[in-house]
Amino acid sequence: MSMDITFLGTGSAYPSPTRGASALVLRREGECWLFDCGEGTQTQLMRSHLRAGRITKIFITHLHGDHFFGLPGLLCTLSLQSNPDPNKPPVDIYGPLGLRDFIWRSLELSHSQLLFPYVVHELVPTRDQCPDEEFRDFSHLGRDGPAPQGSGGRILHLDPEEHSYLLQEDEQLILRAFRLFHRVPSFGFVLEEKPRPGRLNVLKLKELGVQPGPLYGKLKSGTAVVLENGVRISPADVLEEPIPGRKVCILGDCSGVVGEEATRLCWGADVLVHEATLGESQQDKAKEHGHSTPGMASEFARRCGVRKLVLTHFSQRYKPAAQAGQGDEDVTELGRQAEAVLGGQGVALAEDFMTIEIPLRRGITE
Amino acid sequence: MSMDITFLGTGSAYPSPTRGASALVLRREGECWLFDCGEGTQTQLMRSHLRAGRITKIFITHLHGDHFFGLPGLLCTLSLQSNPDPNKPPVDIYGPLGLRDFIWRSLELSHSQLLFPYVVHELVPTRDQCPDEEFRDFSHLGRDGPAPQGSGGRILHLDPEEHSYLLQEDEQLILRAFRLFHRVPSFGFVLEEKPRPGRLNVLKLKELGVQPGPLYGKLKSGTAVVLENGVRISPADVLEEPIPGRKVCILGDCSGVVGEEATRLCWGADVLVHEATLGESQQDKAKEHGHSTPGMASEFARRCGVRKLVLTHFSQRYKPAAQAGQGDEDVTELGRQAEAVLGGQGVALAEDFMTIEIPLRRGITE
Repeated sequence: MSMDITFLGTGSAYPSPTRGASALVLRREGECWLFDCGEGTQTQLMRSHLRAGRITKIFITHLHGDHFFGLPGLLCTLSLQSNPDPNKPPVDIYGPLGLRDFIWRSLELSHSQLLFPYVVHELVPTRDQCPDEEFRDFSHLGRDGPAPQGSGGRILHLDPEEHSYLLQEDEQLILRAFRLFHRVPSFGFVLEEKPRPGRLNVLKLKELGVQPGPLYGKLKSGTAVVLENGVRISPADVLEEPIPGRKVCILGDCSGVVGEEATRLCWGADVLVHEATLGESQQDKAKEHGHSTPGMASEFARRCGVRKLVLTHFSQRYKPAAQAGQGDEDVTELGRQAEAVLGGQGVALAEDFMTIEIPLRRGITE
Repeated sequence: MSMDITFLGTGSAYPSPTRGASALVLRREGECWLFDCGEGTQTQLMRSHLRAGRITKIFITHLHGDHFFGLPGLLCTLSLQSNPDPNKPPVDIYGPLGLRDFIWRSLELSHSQLLFPYVVHELVPTRDQCPDEEFRDFSHLGRDGPAPQGSGGRILHLDPEEHSYLLQEDEQLILRAFRLFHRVPSFGFVLEEKPRPGRLNVLKLKELGVQPGPLYGKLKSGTAVVLENGVRISPADVLEEPIPGRKVCILGDCSGVVGEEATRLCWGADVLVHEATLGESQQDKAKEHGHSTPGMASEFARRCGVRKLVLTHFSQRYKPAAQAGQGDEDVTELGRQAEAVLGGQGVALAEDFMTIEIPLRRGITE
């Protein structure tokens, strides 16, 4: 049950040879979930150890080009490399309103017939997610003309009670989006695993006279059993503590969150991925462009009590430490600025192709 | 008066770490003209010795994603790196009908306000440029709604007498497009320089008693002069042979040209850039997908009597010779196939970042 995050693009504004445009992959249960898809993401995927064909979900945080201009090309290449399979479930694409129309038109104009199905679920932003004069209403896009491929997707409105968008919930996990403030409406995503049943206490099972076999499975899955001698054994008698699920929060560009709900949603996250485009000395400029500094990101991480903060989306001026030439600014100073807020807690600075493992919290007492 | 071509992407179908998606730059008089702009072109430009800010014209040969999905991102990055300049002439973008709407929608959705003007000139294809069932009429695109930025461009129809599209003509050059057959309508472009006046014969000028100074300039520019002694000197008396202009032909994807006019247009070209996606053993597959083999490209080059053929747009299976690992197919076999048709004449195989000089034909007798 491994889970990891691999960064494919960690630069802001545009892709460069040292930092690709925004993209990262969350890998879990053999599936790859892609978060943002700036231009060049498909090539970064080829350079990585990941298999693009494993992508089952794609999330676009906001509609700035460096976060989604790579999407039509990625879809076309995935199609070229795939075999038609009528049983293949559609790739789910989540992103702000307007994304479906863009994908459809790009594929239509380029005469691209994808060999796999996809659906686009659009998040309807609220007006307070960006400066008033920047807000544009894209609700008219794609509402005229024939229903395009990918039109089976949902239109997701903010849940007025939860203050978030419910994207998916099943036995294993719950997936939500929440609102961020940026130059254009931006979103964060929270993947939360539900707790798993603890391990069977084999010693106790023996004491109680339960023979290894089907009864073990029933107990593990949460069903009480009755032995031949009439003794009833409930799962709680023989299961160890449940294993807590992991929580991963991946935020789009922002100078802050909208509403207080985000703090609760991100509370106690194992990993929080947050942008830190510019250093503290340029905090005014960062805010003006709807971005964060390491200090702003760390302050949010501290409020949420997260275990690990990963900073990314650095201005292209900040070279990776290993690649910085004389006179170049590198990212280590940004790391120090974050640590100054978080004290001893570790902060990771994302680089292209860096992978972060997110282990299960076995044996950790909450 | 140097002129050269630099290849930025030489792979077909999609960009890979060894071959970028289609793009090349023709550099002349300090200006850069970009031909095709596949995804990742802006990053390839950064890796090259070229300066993206020098791009004054962009040509899109056809509307397959690997030839134009990099265009919105490139425009945004050019804008980020430019300073507002009210005197800057617009960037001219030429491409098939439908391109203007795509650019406008991509910039609109991504909230991109370019700091420089651009105009899109759209080429209207004819139905015989692709299989009948593949033809789509994009003439409705962008005809509704408010006039977008870039709408000052022209709609260019085939000249029924010349069988070509006149894009530009001035004192120095003439620029035309012509039709190719592909899975979707595709175009080739011909840049033809007009002959320049020959050098002044200084020895003869002395003999005739012309003093160095303004009279030299007048004669060079083609104006006759009268000396103080009443002698009339015409430019032909003192100018050496005119220097022939160069001709460069850059073709989009194709399995052939439409009409016989292309041969005349490309006749005697200094450089012909032609695709050769697959080797001879796969000629059927190549034709089925509207592509060429080295032999097909060479046959056209031979018919046109071109001086240098450059093959590009290789299937990603063909690794550059220097990067081919054991068991990989490399491009050298494709080169041999071309040479078999062209005899001793040199054929160049494009690689990413390769530059080809196109010298003036000084002293060459035609």
